[in-house]
Amino acid sequence: MPEKYPLKEDISAAHERIKPFIHHTPVMTSQSINAMVGAELFLKCENLQKVGAFKYRGATNAVLSLTDDERKNGVATHSSGNHAQALALAARNNGLKAYIVMPLTSSKVKLDAVRGYGAEVITCEPNQKSREETLADAVKRTGATFIHPYNNYHIITGQATAAKELIEDVKGLDVIMAPVGGGGLLSGTALSTHYFSPTSVVIAGEPANANDAYQSMQQGRIVEAVPPNTIADGLLTSLGDKTFDIIRKHVNEIVPVTESEIVTAMRLVWERMKIIIEPSSAVPIAAAFKIKNNIKGKRIGIIISGGNVDLSKLPF
Amino acid sequence: MPEKYPLKEDISAAHERIKPFIHHTPVMTSQSINAMVGAELFLKCENLQKVGAFKYRGATNAVLSLTDDERKNGVATHSSGNHAQALALAARNNGLKAYIVMPLTSSKVKLDAVRGYGAEVITCEPNQKSREETLADAVKRTGATFIHPYNNYHIITGQATAAKELIEDVKGLDVIMAPVGGGGLLSGTALSTHYFSPTSVVIAGEPANANDAYQSMQQGRIVEAVPPNTIADGLLTSLGDKTFDIIRKHVNEIVPVTESEIVTAMRLVWERMKIIIEPSSAVPIAAAFKIKNNIKGKRIGIIISGGNVDLSKLPF
Repeated sequence: MPEKYPLKEDISAAHERIKPFIHHTPVMTSQSINAMVGAELFLKCENLQKVGAFKYRGATNAVLSLTDDERKNGVATHSSGNHAQALALAARNNGLKAYIVMPLTSSKVKLDAVRGYGAEVITCEPNQKSREETLADAVKRTGATFIHPYNNYHIITGQATAAKELIEDVKGLDVIMAPVGGGGLLSGTALSTHYFSPTSVVIAGEPANANDAYQSMQQGRIVEAVPPNTIADGLLTSLGDKTFDIIRKHVNEIVPVTESEIVTAMRLVWERMKIIIEPSSAVPIAAAFKIKNNIKGKRIGIIISGGNVDLSKLPF
Repeated sequence: MPEKYPLKEDISAAHERIKPFIHHTPVMTSQSINAMVGAELFLKCENLQKVGAFKYRGATNAVLSLTDDERKNGVATHSSGNHAQALALAARNNGLKAYIVMPLTSSKVKLDAVRGYGAEVITCEPNQKSREETLADAVKRTGATFIHPYNNYHIITGQATAAKELIEDVKGLDVIMAPVGGGGLLSGTALSTHYFSPTSVVIAGEPANANDAYQSMQQGRIVEAVPPNTIADGLLTSLGDKTFDIIRKHVNEIVPVTESEIVTAMRLVWERMKIIIEPSSAVPIAAAFKIKNNIKGKRIGIIISGGNVDLSKLPF
């Protein structure tokens, strides 16, 4: 079906569509972390989602929303991260071919994981021009349908289902938080909050070293990410027009956090909660600590984006 | 109440007694790990228990089973590990004093954690003689009741509730596995299996570098642990007479695993399941891999003992 701006009923329909394929992930809490922040944090654990990230929701919704004609030649995308694995698995689970353009500098672990889900990997130079050209060539050669990692309403609608589940499972949330990179998760989170929990406030965390979303909100236009330097490697990309449009309407605040704040929050969750979260997931937790004077005693939902970490390269 | 050999109704009563204080921990599964083993593994996640370990069950049951007279002067124990934190918190949550004898070589993190739960830490030299003398002195001075870390039927009965929950939550388990150190968890697991799932087989994993329980089973008497050298630092102790008695009756097999098998299994769970398990918890998983030809297609419950790991000293 064609893309359109997601309404409330579109998110509900997407949720029903993908339910048989996804995990309904748990919400976890920590008394000791709550005591440190002075608020109640409810972590929606998408690190326990299939492929270890929320991205599987959007990819599954996008694949299931294809017309017969679009399905015929499979799907294609560019990604060096979780979207690559998510689309590869979603395609395989629905009997489609997948073509994934990845930088030839990607780690062998990542390349193997995507191939392990049955996708054809096409490597490119690690720059935007090569990535776009390689993808265009692949689409031309194969006839596959391009599924953008985030600037796509089917993707956004799929990602929105994580916050929808959180809102259904935890009543009376005052604030809902998520990290922001390209904005797929944040825009979906903001839409679900707007439709299903309209009195809640949406606050994003963003690495100060990659604060293009913060800048974009300030300037009222999409500011491109300059080559950023942050451990939160899921948050390197710039907003798209679709995600920016939703974010500027429905996100109340973007809180920048430093690299050391990200690492501290990540380590705290590992130690106290015994779950593995990736640096990007620690960003909204670090943001909650940063604004703790403003959220005292409140109920804060936080979308934990994923748990894909290279254990050989830990920051502690 | 006085200690007695735990019957079925004792375990049920202990479970009711401690339920308001403990977490009913989740059971987690991994399709990819199941595919690698060729069996269905159900992980009972006591790493998500309070203080990050099953030990909180036994400590809570022991504290709640004290007579008024025994409660009066608090509780005491020796432990450098999870039992220390578990008893400290269980005591505090029940308004009792706790005196914990710990080797002066313990890490500051561990000492601080026990003190953070309000216990008085008494340091000793890192050898058995000093530990026992220091504990005897503390008991004499304070009048506190000694709670042995594992060779105590209230402790064993409390630890048994983890397997009881697993058996209630997952039907038709063919095998139930646990690690073995002093044998508190394993004997409790074996008793619950005997009473609540009598057709299931009980198999333990043990580090080959600390295989005193294996030796004890072979020789029919308690073999003392020689100073062992294993990353599974929760499994260094020797069996006690109470735990050995139960283990020899109700445990079918003890599988020794190497250090590298332990590290491989631990890393696999971190990577695929995004949960933090300590090396001791990886031991029964490594054992499941070792005996995979004998458990093909079977349903295997595994008690994950805990998730307390020093993130500064990871083996990968």
